[in-house]
Amino acid sequence: MNSVPQPAPLRRSFIRFPTQVEYGSGMLKRIGEFTASYGKKAYCLFDPFFRGSESAAVVLDALHAVGIETFESYEVHPNPRSGDIDKQAQLCLEQKCDFVIAMGGGGTLDIGKAVAFLVTNGRSAWDYTVKENQFYHTITIPPLPFVAVPTTAGTGSEATIYSVVNNPDIQRKCTIRSFELYPKLAIVDPELMLNIPPLLTALTGIDTFAHAFESYTNKNATAFSKMLAMESMRLFAENIIECVENGKNAEARGNMAIASLLGGLAISHSPTTLPHIIGQCLSGWVDAPHGGSLAVCLAQVIRWTLPNGQTEFAQIARVIAPELNAVSDAEAANALPDIIDKLFVRIMGNQRVTMKTYGMDENRAGEFAEFIFHNYQKDMSNYLRVPSQEELYAIIQDCL
Amino acid sequence: MNSVPQPAPLRRSFIRFPTQVEYGSGMLKRIGEFTASYGKKAYCLFDPFFRGSESAAVVLDALHAVGIETFESYEVHPNPRSGDIDKQAQLCLEQKCDFVIAMGGGGTLDIGKAVAFLVTNGRSAWDYTVKENQFYHTITIPPLPFVAVPTTAGTGSEATIYSVVNNPDIQRKCTIRSFELYPKLAIVDPELMLNIPPLLTALTGIDTFAHAFESYTNKNATAFSKMLAMESMRLFAENIIECVENGKNAEARGNMAIASLLGGLAISHSPTTLPHIIGQCLSGWVDAPHGGSLAVCLAQVIRWTLPNGQTEFAQIARVIAPELNAVSDAEAANALPDIIDKLFVRIMGNQRVTMKTYGMDENRAGEFAEFIFHNYQKDMSNYLRVPSQEELYAIIQDCL
Repeated sequence: MNSVPQPAPLRRSFIRFPTQVEYGSGMLKRIGEFTASYGKKAYCLFDPFFRGSESAAVVLDALHAVGIETFESYEVHPNPRSGDIDKQAQLCLEQKCDFVIAMGGGGTLDIGKAVAFLVTNGRSAWDYTVKENQFYHTITIPPLPFVAVPTTAGTGSEATIYSVVNNPDIQRKCTIRSFELYPKLAIVDPELMLNIPPLLTALTGIDTFAHAFESYTNKNATAFSKMLAMESMRLFAENIIECVENGKNAEARGNMAIASLLGGLAISHSPTTLPHIIGQCLSGWVDAPHGGSLAVCLAQVIRWTLPNGQTEFAQIARVIAPELNAVSDAEAANALPDIIDKLFVRIMGNQRVTMKTYGMDENRAGEFAEFIFHNYQKDMSNYLRVPSQEELYAIIQDCL
Repeated sequence: MNSVPQPAPLRRSFIRFPTQVEYGSGMLKRIGEFTASYGKKAYCLFDPFFRGSESAAVVLDALHAVGIETFESYEVHPNPRSGDIDKQAQLCLEQKCDFVIAMGGGGTLDIGKAVAFLVTNGRSAWDYTVKENQFYHTITIPPLPFVAVPTTAGTGSEATIYSVVNNPDIQRKCTIRSFELYPKLAIVDPELMLNIPPLLTALTGIDTFAHAFESYTNKNATAFSKMLAMESMRLFAENIIECVENGKNAEARGNMAIASLLGGLAISHSPTTLPHIIGQCLSGWVDAPHGGSLAVCLAQVIRWTLPNGQTEFAQIARVIAPELNAVSDAEAANALPDIIDKLFVRIMGNQRVTMKTYGMDENRAGEFAEFIFHNYQKDMSNYLRVPSQEELYAIIQDCL
C-alpha cells in the first residue's frame, strides 16, 4: 500500500517536552522578562478579538519595556488555511522578526507554530502535513523561537507537537507533526479566559476531554501519558460545568486551562485515534467547529467500542462519576456513553448536536466512511477497537 | 540574617523539564543511536560494580558502533565528596571528552552531573553548593551534554535539578541546584535493576517515597507537581513490596523506576522539606545511607505534623491503603504514620531503623536540633508545619 516514499515515522520518547510553561493569573504581564533573550523583534499574531484590547496592550507594553520591537497581525481565521499561513510566514520574514508570539485559540497558536518554522524552512505549510499515502516534507531546520499564549482551554496546542492546517480546495484538514513544533515558552494565564462565552467554553472543553480520552485509550499509551490523560479528565469533569455556567470563576478556568495543557501533552506522547479522525474529516467536509465535530461522535464511538475497553472505560467513568466506584467494571464502563451524552448536552446549553447540525448530508455517509477508511488506516489501528469500513458506516449513521 | 550576598533565589516554572527520557527493557542498547550527535568522545562514569560487566559492555559497544570514543572511570564512592568530583572533572577535561555518561545509583549520577558542568564552568563542586547564610557560585556556562542511566529506583536524579555533594571535613552534605543540572538524556532500563539486593531496594524506594511525600506536602506544590508526586506514591505503594521480595519481577521494577523518575521530577518543581533536611544533616553527621536517614524520621515527622496536614495525609494514606476510602479524612490521616512505620519495617527485612542504628549519639540530639534550626530556616518554611528549635529537638528524640 505504501509504495510512495514517506518520511520515517515519528518516534515518541517516554517523556519529551522542552517547553517552559509559566502558569498563573497575571502571568502575561511577565512576557517581556521571559522573552528578553529571544531577539530584537517579535511577530505578534493575535486573534482579531484582541485588536485594541487591554490584553494585547499588556503584551506589547511588556515587550517594549525590555526593548523588543513588535509587528502585529490580526489575520486569523477559525480553521487555519495553508494559503493564509504562508502569507503570514512571508510577512514575518519581510519584517525580519526574530521570534513569534501567538495569543488566541488553538487555530491561532497553530498558525504561529507554522509561521515560526516556515520562516526558517521555506515551502508551503501544506507541504509538511502528514498524508498517509503521499510524500510530505519534514522540518529540518530549527524554527524561530515560538511563544504560545492560549486564550481558550481546549486544543492544548501550547503543549503539542501538532499544527492543524485546512485545505478547503480538497476538503481536507491535515496535521503537521514534529517535535520542532513544541513552543519554547507557553504562558497560561486564566485571566485571559474569563470572558469566553458558554458555547465556546463547552466546545473547546469537549476537545480537551477528547484528547485525554483518546490518548488514554490509545493502544500505545504509557504510564506517563496515562497519568497526564487521567488528570486532564479529572480536571475537566470537576470544572467544565462551572466554567460554562459561571465563566468568571478564575479557579475553575485555571483548572480547565491545566486540563487543556495536560491533554495536549498527553496526545503528544500517545496520540488521538478514532474520534479525532472522524471529527477532523467532518471539519474538512462541512467546516464544523472542531469541538462540535467531536461532540457528535464521542459517545457513539465509545458505545460501539464497549466490549473492547471495559477496564479503561470503567476508570474513565469513575473519574467523571465517582459514585461508580461502588459498582463493577462492566457496570461502570456501560454507563460511560450515557454519562458523556448527558454531560455534553448539558454544557452545550441543553442541545444535542449531530453531524446533521453541522450540515452533513446523510446521503454522503457511505462515501464519508469510505474516505476515512482509506486515508486513516494507520492512525485507526492504535485504537482499542479497529473498525471495518462497514462498522465505520454504522458508527457514522449513529452520529447523523 | 542574610547580610551575606547570595545568588538570586531559584525561580521555578509550572513545568520545566528539557530532558529526553527513554524508558523500557533493553533500551540501554540504543544509547549510541540517541547520543550519536553529542560528540566524538564520551566520559563514561560507571559504578565500580559494573567493572567488566555485560551492562558496561552494552554501553561501550553501542557507543563504539556509532564511532564514539570512550574513556571509562569507576571511581565512585557512596556519598560523593567534592574533592573526588573535582578530580573526575579534571580527568574529563584532560581526556577532551565531549559529553558525560553516568550509569549507577543516585550518587554516581550526581557526580556525572557535577563533572559535566565543572568542565565548562571551572572551580570546585563545593563552591556551587547552596548554603543558607554564605555566598555560593552559580552555573553560568552550559554544561557538557549529560546522559543519566539510573540503575537503582530511588533518587530520581535522572529527572532532577540537583546534585548532592558531601564535605566530610565539615560534616556537611549540601546540594547544587540548577536547571542546568537536568540531563540532556535519561535512559531508564528496568533490566539494570533486577539484581539490586532487597535492602538497597528498600532504602532507595524509601527515598522515592520521601521525595513524592515531601513534594506533595510542600506549601508551594502545584497541580502539576502534585500529579507527579501522587502518581509516584501510587506506583511506590503498589510495587515496592514485590520489588523487595521478588526482585526479578521486571514489571514491578519498571514501575518503581517510573515512581523514582516522577518523584525526582516532582521535587524539581516543588522541593523536599523537613524530612530531607533532617536526613541530609544526619548523613552529614554520621554517614548514614540516604534512604536510611529518611526511614528513621518520616513517620515521626508526619505524626508531629498531623493536625496541620489532615487533607493531604488522608489522600496519601488512601493511595497506600485504598480501604481507607471508606473512612473520614481525620481517620485516614491519623492512620498514616503507623501505615508507613509498618511498611518500612516490612521492606527493611523486619527491622526498625532509628538514628542510633546509624551511630547517632543521643547526647548530641540538642546540638543536632540547633544545627538544623540555624542552617535550614528557608527550606523548612515550605513545610506544612514549621518547627521551633524545641519542637525539632522533640522530633529528633522520637527518631533516636
